Amino acid sequence: MTADEATATLLSDAIGGRRVALARLLSLVERGGDGAMSVARVTHAAAGSGYTVGITGAPGAGKSTLTNMVCSEVRTTGDRVAVLAIDPSSPYSGGAILGDRIRMGDHTLDDGVFIRSMATRGHLGGLSLATPGAIRVLDAVGFPWIVVETVGVGQVEVEIVGSADTCVVVVNPGWGDAIQANKAGLMEIADVFVINKSDRAGAAETRSDLEQMLALRPADGWMPPVVSTVASTGEGVADLWAAIGAHRRHLERSGEGALRRRRRAESELRRVISAIIAARVGAVASSEPFSDAVGAILDRRVDPWSAAHRLVDSAAPPAAGPPADGRI
Amino acid sequence: MTADEATATLLSDAIGGRRVALARLLSLVERGGDGAMSVARVTHAAAGSGYTVGITGAPGAGKSTLTNMVCSEVRTTGDRVAVLAIDPSSPYSGGAILGDRIRMGDHTLDDGVFIRSMATRGHLGGLSLATPGAIRVLDAVGFPWIVVETVGVGQVEVEIVGSADTCVVVVNPGWGDAIQANKAGLMEIADVFVINKSDRAGAAETRSDLEQMLALRPADGWMPPVVSTVASTGEGVADLWAAIGAHRRHLERSGEGALRRRRRAESELRRVISAIIAARVGAVASSEPFSDAVGAILDRRVDPWSAAHRLVDSAAPPAAGPPADGRI
Repeated sequence: MTADEATATLLSDAIGGRRVALARLLSLVERGGDGAMSVARVTHAAAGSGYTVGITGAPGAGKSTLTNMVCSEVRTTGDRVAVLAIDPSSPYSGGAILGDRIRMGDHTLDDGVFIRSMATRGHLGGLSLATPGAIRVLDAVGFPWIVVETVGVGQVEVEIVGSADTCVVVVNPGWGDAIQANKAGLMEIADVFVINKSDRAGAAETRSDLEQMLALRPADGWMPPVVSTVASTGEGVADLWAAIGAHRRHLERSGEGALRRRRRAESELRRVISAIIAARVGAVASSEPFSDAVGAILDRRVDPWSAAHRLVDSAAPPAAGPPADGRI
Repeated sequence: MTADEATATLLSDAIGGRRVALARLLSLVERGGDGAMSVARVTHAAAGSGYTVGITGAPGAGKSTLTNMVCSEVRTTGDRVAVLAIDPSSPYSGGAILGDRIRMGDHTLDDGVFIRSMATRGHLGGLSLATPGAIRVLDAVGFPWIVVETVGVGQVEVEIVGSADTCVVVVNPGWGDAIQANKAGLMEIADVFVINKSDRAGAAETRSDLEQMLALRPADGWMPPVVSTVASTGEGVADLWAAIGAHRRHLERSGEGALRRRRRAESELRRVISAIIAARVGAVASSEPFSDAVGAILDRRVDPWSAAHRLVDSAAPPAAGPPADGRI
């Protein structure tokens, strides 16, 4: 059995409801390398119908509780939903993320909800490749809704959530200080704003702050609504769900959804190309020809640019004919 | 006349003493691209006998005045010397760097001293490629001493000066606060420490600080001396010059000099390879095949990894035979 056949077996098991097979596919994606490439080859054709909702905000804003509530809303429609929780630093078993997942415990016995944490362990480049790969798996397995939850700090995390179909930015009353550094970035990616913990002091000021900033956005046919919620009681969650639905309809009606999918595909393809090339540079730099070239440079037999061109050219296989493994 | 023949003419003019030709070669290096590659091809074989001294430290530490004094010491031996002043942000005509160059005015009428500022204009990757290229030119033109002066803030600047044959780190009494962020990096690259403005309060404490930190360094056959100077009066500059000479003899005796040259060649080759590859990725991502691939990904006809492999492979020229331009 080839690697792709083994992966295809995992996929059909996962589609048939075997959680262990699904978890294994996601682990392959997370680990990167050949396994992740095999998963991409096998799952890509089956994916394409899932809708992604990104939820981001400062630590402690209540993202996980909101995510939990959104899952409940999805379940009332009968649809299944998968949650991908991206944590930039904590290992799965660490304090915050474990606490979050425990708070999301409502759904642990519901077969229609699948929750997965992805830790980066300091490997950010990996995260920006692994997340679209993991979304592709969940999509191919048949989840019509995929919620991606990240902390709204760090460029990669913001980019990840910003490439969702609908991006929800969660703030709290008096939010300004908490995410000062990323304010502009978050304003830019938000399709829906949530003022969570809106029963606290300062909610009205926060709303008027947000609305003033939103008024400065260039008009592009969609004005992000500002929804007030108290996730812990469920207050306002139906409004959030309605706002997500309204944005989804806007994307479909306006053609913006197709544009967004294209930009997302372009951006992933660019990152994958960079990763492939970086791997080749790494391989070149630890090769014997590299070491020979350094010797030739030191002996003044060749200059660095000519040597580098030669190494790069020889690291890439000849362009004639399709590769033997049947890649397009 | 081919580009390389034109460059070779510039080189022989520069070797013959024509400053305009030398300046033109350095401008080609600074500008990057094909011109810089041509200069590398033409100058590399002629280079290899110059000795580089890096001088770095916090802004205001007195690097330029010290550089000026070191040039005077070199000139007393009859040798010629070139100075490459790397400034991470200021344009050549800007305040600080112009001021520095004016302070170095002692040598403006001396044919044995050549001074060149290289500004980065926010193009840091360019700087880390251009600096070794510019050193190669000055070396090929016949300067036996090349002093590279950078501000000791910013990873690239520290790396640049750290790859000199002898690296001089300039501090002032009470230096700790000024370069706190880069302290460890500067401790690591220093072959010689200078406490400049050592007539000021706190010089003795600074010396004992430095010596304590140096005692923690792993013994590798060279203990960086700590030289006290008052560059504005010339006090201590002969000691600094002697320390540079002692380090040079240590490099030759111990074989460390050859190791350093190899590491430098490896590091330049790696950076040149990355630059070549980054240029190819840029070309690929703006190509029609890239746009076609995005379409195929969106239509689920191909997955991103397979598409990326194909694009990368087709962007590399066939590996058969040497390139037409005669690169090795």
